[in-house]
Amino acid sequence: MSHYAVGVDVGGTSVKLALVSEEGEVIEQTSVPTLGDESPDATVSQIAETVAAFKKNLKAGDEILGIGIGVPGVVDLDGGTVSYPPNLKGWGVVRLGDLVKKATGYETKVENDANVAAFGEGIFGSGKNHNSFIMITLGTGVGGGIVIGKKIYRGMFGGAGEIGHISIQHDGPACNCGNRGCIERYIGQQNIVDFAHQTVGKFPHSPLARTAEDRRLEVKDLGLNAVKNDEFSIHVLGHVGKLLGVALTSMLHILDIRTFIIGGGVAGAGDFILGPAETHIKTHALASMRHSVKLIPAVLGNNAGVLGAAAMVYQN
Amino acid sequence: MSHYAVGVDVGGTSVKLALVSEEGEVIEQTSVPTLGDESPDATVSQIAETVAAFKKNLKAGDEILGIGIGVPGVVDLDGGTVSYPPNLKGWGVVRLGDLVKKATGYETKVENDANVAAFGEGIFGSGKNHNSFIMITLGTGVGGGIVIGKKIYRGMFGGAGEIGHISIQHDGPACNCGNRGCIERYIGQQNIVDFAHQTVGKFPHSPLARTAEDRRLEVKDLGLNAVKNDEFSIHVLGHVGKLLGVALTSMLHILDIRTFIIGGGVAGAGDFILGPAETHIKTHALASMRHSVKLIPAVLGNNAGVLGAAAMVYQN
Repeated sequence: MSHYAVGVDVGGTSVKLALVSEEGEVIEQTSVPTLGDESPDATVSQIAETVAAFKKNLKAGDEILGIGIGVPGVVDLDGGTVSYPPNLKGWGVVRLGDLVKKATGYETKVENDANVAAFGEGIFGSGKNHNSFIMITLGTGVGGGIVIGKKIYRGMFGGAGEIGHISIQHDGPACNCGNRGCIERYIGQQNIVDFAHQTVGKFPHSPLARTAEDRRLEVKDLGLNAVKNDEFSIHVLGHVGKLLGVALTSMLHILDIRTFIIGGGVAGAGDFILGPAETHIKTHALASMRHSVKLIPAVLGNNAGVLGAAAMVYQN
Repeated sequence: MSHYAVGVDVGGTSVKLALVSEEGEVIEQTSVPTLGDESPDATVSQIAETVAAFKKNLKAGDEILGIGIGVPGVVDLDGGTVSYPPNLKGWGVVRLGDLVKKATGYETKVENDANVAAFGEGIFGSGKNHNSFIMITLGTGVGGGIVIGKKIYRGMFGGAGEIGHISIQHDGPACNCGNRGCIERYIGQQNIVDFAHQTVGKFPHSPLARTAEDRRLEVKDLGLNAVKNDEFSIHVLGHVGKLLGVALTSMLHILDIRTFIIGGGVAGAGDFILGPAETHIKTHALASMRHSVKLIPAVLGNNAGVLGAAAMVYQN
C-alpha cells in the first residue's frame, strides 16, 4: 500500500498537476490551461477532475493523503485564502483551500508559489541536506523563498521572501513596485539584456556583441557564448553575479543563513553568475560569517512547484 | 516567596549587573569596570562576587533562578561560548556560560549583546505586545536583533541581526567591515555628523549650521535644534530617517516583520528620524506589506541589556 499527494502549481498560463510519491517521484503528471479570467470555480473544477482521474488510476489499497497548491500572490493560511492574485484577474479574495477541499474531499494546503518552489527544493532537491537555506529564482523577475529548519518562513502575514525588492542602491532606478534600486531592476531578465546592449561598445572583438546592433540579445545567448570564452558574455554575467552577491550579502547579514540555492531560467548561465556572486560574498561579507557560505544550483527546474506543493501534504 | 534572575551586560568599559524580578523590576543594580585585558577568570570572579552579594540580601525563601549574560560578539550556545570578542582583548575562545555556572552554581545563559537588548525590549519594553519585531540600535554603529515569536532569531550560527551591514548602495563608500555602502556607513553617529558638515552651506540662515565652522557638531545638537524648528537639523535628521527607511524596507521585504523598535543614542532625536523613516517605508515598500508597518521607540534605554539578560532566565 502506497501513499501519494497531489501537487498543484497554478501559473499565469497553465495549471500543472502531479501525483507524487513520498520519495518525490512524479507518478503521473498533467497540465491544463489557466482559466484566470473566469471565476475561481473553473480552476477548482479542473483540479477536482484531475484528482478524480489520478485516483481512478491508483492500485487497490493505494491512497491519496491530500492536496498541496502553489499560487501567485500572498496567501493567508486561514482557509488557504488567496487575495487578488495579479495574474488571475477573475479572482478576488478566494478561500481556495476550503473550496478544493469541499470539491474533492481531501485536506488541501495552499501557499505562495515562490515559497512552494523553495520548499520543493528543500525536501526533494538541492536543499535536501540543508535545514535552512534561501532560494533565489532568477527569471523575468527575481523571486525567493526562505526555509528555516525545514519549514517555509512566512513572516507575520505570509509575505516574506520578496528578495527581488531588496534595494541595492537607495537612489537607483525606479522599480515597478514603487521602490528604488531593487535588485530585480538590475538582474531581471530584460534588465540584464538592457545592460548587455549598453556594454557592447566595450567589446568590439566579441562576435556576440557585434550581432547586438541588428537584434535584441537574449540571456541564453550570453550563457551559450560565455561557455565559448566570449569576454563580453562573461563580463555581463559577471556583473549580474556581483550585484546578486550584494543582495545575498545583505541577506546573510540579516539572517545568518549561509546556503543559497539559485534557480530559474537566468540561472541556466550557472557558474558564470554563481562564481562571481560567491566571490563577492566571500570578499565583502562580515569575516565571521563569510567562510561557510555556499551557492548551489537548484535541480528541480519546472517541477519544483508541483513537488513542493506535494511536499506540503507530507509535512504533517 | 519570590523568584529573581541576575542579568549581566558585559560592555567594553563596564559590566552591569542587576537582580531582576519576574515582572522586569530592577531590585538591585551595580556596575564594575570591565577587566577585558585580563583573563576571563577576572570577569567570572566579578560576576560570582556580585551574585553572592545579591543572594545575601534576599529575604528568606526568595530564590535566584539563574543568570543571563549579554556579551559583544558571536556566541555559540554550546557552553555559552564567546569567541575573540573584539572589545575584550584578554579573551580567546571562552566557555563563559560553563565558567559562570561552575563559579556560582547557577544555570547560566549567554547571548550576543544586541540580541539580548532586543529580547529585553520584547519581554519588558516596547515589544511587550508584539510577538515578532526587529530592533535597531542607532549609536556609534548600527546594531540590531530580530525577535520572532517571542524568541531571539539567531540564524544558523548565532550571527543574525547584523543590520548595520545591509548595503544600501552597492558601489558606495567602503565600510570597516569589508563591505561597501553599509547603512552604518551613512547613519553611524560620526557619519551623520560628517553629512551635517557637508550640508551646512545649504542653510545659511540656520544658527546651528553657522556654529559648524568653528567646531565639530554632535548628533544631540541636531536633535535639540530640530525641536526649535531649525531647518538644517530637520534636514539632516530627515536624511538619516530616509536612509534608515531604505534598509528597513529591504528587511520588511525579506522578513515580513512589520514592527520596528528603534533605540540607541541617535534615536534620541525621535520623530525627526522615525517620521521620515516611516514615510519612506509607506511610500516605497510593496503595497501588500506597507500598511501595517509601525516604528516605535525603544523604552528601556541602558537597562535593555541587563533586563534582556535576566529575561533569558525566565524564558524556560
